[in-house]
Amino acid sequence: MAVNDRIILGIDPGTIVMGYGLIHIKNNVVKPIGIGVIKLDKLDDHGLRLKMIFERMIAIIDEYKPDELAIEAPFFGKNVQSMLKLGRAQGVAIAAALSKNIPFTEYSPRKIKMSITGSGNSSKEQVAAMLVQILGIEKEQKFLDATDALGAALCHYYQNKNTGTKTKSYTGWKAFLTDNPKRKI
Amino acid sequence: MAVNDRIILGIDPGTIVMGYGLIHIKNNVVKPIGIGVIKLDKLDDHGLRLKMIFERMIAIIDEYKPDELAIEAPFFGKNVQSMLKLGRAQGVAIAAALSKNIPFTEYSPRKIKMSITGSGNSSKEQVAAMLVQILGIEKEQKFLDATDALGAALCHYYQNKNTGTKTKSYTGWKAFLTDNPKRKI
Repeated sequence: MAVNDRIILGIDPGTIVMGYGLIHIKNNVVKPIGIGVIKLDKLDDHGLRLKMIFERMIAIIDEYKPDELAIEAPFFGKNVQSMLKLGRAQGVAIAAALSKNIPFTEYSPRKIKMSITGSGNSSKEQVAAMLVQILGIEKEQKFLDATDALGAALCHYYQNKNTGTKTKSYTGWKAFLTDNPKRKI
Repeated sequence: MAVNDRIILGIDPGTIVMGYGLIHIKNNVVKPIGIGVIKLDKLDDHGLRLKMIFERMIAIIDEYKPDELAIEAPFFGKNVQSMLKLGRAQGVAIAAALSKNIPFTEYSPRKIKMSITGSGNSSKEQVAAMLVQILGIEKEQKFLDATDALGAALCHYYQNKNTGTKTKSYTGWKAFLTDNPKRKI
């Protein structure tokens, strides 16, 4: 994979909706090449949702052949049960990439907002507006639902763009704990 | 897969240790055919641990070719961060099975204990002692570490043994859609 010709898949895995967005970078020109939302709310079975996430992830990877995966990964949630389910959704999505030998890097929502708008406290609408401006996409509902996913992909590109070196993949959790020692469990 | 000739893989996925145990059932005779522990504590990176879980799961599946997966899945934990990590470990292990078209069924620790010893409040040692008796295995440390995994496999067998019908698992994707056409998305 040439650093100047690569495809990044960004995802925002949830248990109700999973957003995804793909960007193609060639000679430092970034183009969006795919965006969408996998709706899981029609399946009332958690196991079927996991199966759906896995199968759709494999289909997306087979279609677009991304070189890297960037995942939006919140570290906090309202309760242990919702976090277990979120963790499973993330784990299944990550495993789909691992099964295709695609490395993943995770980014906190705050990091992604900071990377796109310059502020970690931006609203979803502000992030979406910046993405429309940067990538020249039409403002559509399906785009709004995949904002964080596309933001994760772009954030990952920005991380590696200026330094010329790749950020280390698989590090998110440790780096987070190093940066936030008091949150260590 | 004949109901009377099948292999069940039981796993107890954690973020430090993942236990696994396999039983072979033929003509209602249950034999343990594999047991082990994947130690993850030497990897200090959460992402690498997920990768290790996925790779080892695939290796176990390729070696033993199980027909079904039974997973020990606690629904509660001490805090949201540990549950997110546990959920990811579970999700990655489940996805490894899904990638090989192996259906999975999950059981709570209480359900497994109840199934093996008759009491949902049994200690790990009591469950281990019953498993030694039922399966005729030597009492070894590695066996103790995989107690819950082997218990999950046996619990899954017991669930389907008496009724002659399978408990609901998540394989029947096409069957599910056939039964629930309105849920097709």
